[in-house]
Amino acid sequence: MMNELDFVTALRSLPLHPGAQGLRDDCALIEIGDEVLVINMDSMAEDTHWRPSADLADVAWKLVALNLSDIASKGAEPVGVLLGYALGGDEDNRFLAGLADALTEFDVPLLGGDTIATTGASTFSITAIGRATCRPVPSRTNATAGEALFVTGSLGRAMLGFEGDKNHLDAFNRPRPRLAEGIALAPVAGAMMDISDGLLLDAYRMAEASDVTVVIDPQLVPVAASDRLDDCMRWGDDYELLFTASWDAELPVDAVRIGCIEEAGEAPLMLGASSFTDPDALGYQHG
Amino acid sequence: MMNELDFVTALRSLPLHPGAQGLRDDCALIEIGDEVLVINMDSMAEDTHWRPSADLADVAWKLVALNLSDIASKGAEPVGVLLGYALGGDEDNRFLAGLADALTEFDVPLLGGDTIATTGASTFSITAIGRATCRPVPSRTNATAGEALFVTGSLGRAMLGFEGDKNHLDAFNRPRPRLAEGIALAPVAGAMMDISDGLLLDAYRMAEASDVTVVIDPQLVPVAASDRLDDCMRWGDDYELLFTASWDAELPVDAVRIGCIEEAGEAPLMLGASSFTDPDALGYQHG
Repeated sequence: MMNELDFVTALRSLPLHPGAQGLRDDCALIEIGDEVLVINMDSMAEDTHWRPSADLADVAWKLVALNLSDIASKGAEPVGVLLGYALGGDEDNRFLAGLADALTEFDVPLLGGDTIATTGASTFSITAIGRATCRPVPSRTNATAGEALFVTGSLGRAMLGFEGDKNHLDAFNRPRPRLAEGIALAPVAGAMMDISDGLLLDAYRMAEASDVTVVIDPQLVPVAASDRLDDCMRWGDDYELLFTASWDAELPVDAVRIGCIEEAGEAPLMLGASSFTDPDALGYQHG
Repeated sequence: MMNELDFVTALRSLPLHPGAQGLRDDCALIEIGDEVLVINMDSMAEDTHWRPSADLADVAWKLVALNLSDIASKGAEPVGVLLGYALGGDEDNRFLAGLADALTEFDVPLLGGDTIATTGASTFSITAIGRATCRPVPSRTNATAGEALFVTGSLGRAMLGFEGDKNHLDAFNRPRPRLAEGIALAPVAGAMMDISDGLLLDAYRMAEASDVTVVIDPQLVPVAASDRLDDCMRWGDDYELLFTASWDAELPVDAVRIGCIEEAGEAPLMLGASSFTDPDALGYQHG
């Protein structure tokens, strides 16, 4: 059995579309006529991505939201989604209810999909298609030394919701992709990506993709639990936008400057005076 | 637990994109600028769609091929595919080998995808994206009384391959989507679809979608085993094209006339003098 990194590395030796961006971005880009379509697929599997006690309505919502979050990070407006659904559980109606909630709330129509019967753990996927509103399309590869680094919202809310904090349950169960913010930011952002796996890990990825050093000042990072700053910077599932812009950019949405971009130095990521050279040290060990 | 029909019926009550065509077609259409993109997703699950003894290289090939077959039925040229992959088995290398074979053979690049770890039976999906070469895009809804009905190739080859006939193993394990034929036929075809679930069932679906009666003369149907005509007309996995055209159309590819289209009568499908009003009677009970 291969691990994910080995598998993706092997995929890179296959014939790749230029819009696949070397499989180093969450989204593929398809130029068609004067337009650019942005395409993203994410899957969720029982046991791996949700707890058996989870409401499948929340799972459906989250699957839509995390795909649209990638569309948002490209400054794209959603065109529609395709659903890959594995029948087999007792809660298909709950999944449908959550899917309806999400599509309605985010004003995104269903384009199609495929429904199959399976045995064992259920796997669901969403393929989201968006239309870029700004050229060039923001990418995680465009961070440039001299820019400032910004984040929308506050981090750690999903973590608190996961832990049962009633004020933050929705942040974990029903996250909201930053669609309007992504479209507004696209013209002023250098690099942009969504934070799905935690600020530190995703900032590290931006640094590697852009071949720069990202410097974060931990005291500037907006978090939902100030006594747990480190946890909040490592936990994922917040789906805020992380982006670069010039220091004096007039930002069209609320965002906080948390650091800056420097020429590639000794490490891809600096957190205050601490340097990080190993992405494996940046994640959060769930539960 | 819902069955597939109930689930898809429920999906139809969600906000649908116009290009979803009411979820009554295998493909979604997205008009963008002057172009139309054709999108299709299919999933395959262990136990449901392949035998435990199957070579995952063949599974990968088939998953690509059956998606491209839907693209072919729209007269579209492939742009690329996205892969949804569940890590967890011992044969990831075999899957990668078959994927490489198919992408190379059909000259289709990888656009992206998602790789997850799962427990239990594996599920893989491909989302194929094509670019329409002809407007209007052929559809299964366009069959018109007075047209003739045609099929490419010969039917039942996949069945023979499944049963172990060495002359037809490739027809089952490594089917070839009719991409060039689909593009060539698009300008002359009225309705067009691929035959994935058997001639009779798919012809029935064309009839229902077009609100006509499809009349098939069984003696005209080209089959790979003439002593098993009925089996050959019911078995799926052949991925030939079924299409309508005027009786005197000059067809740009080899195809055989197997019947005609009449105004909607007592039944959606007539096979010689036999009428069929229940699609459940048309499939093949595998194994």
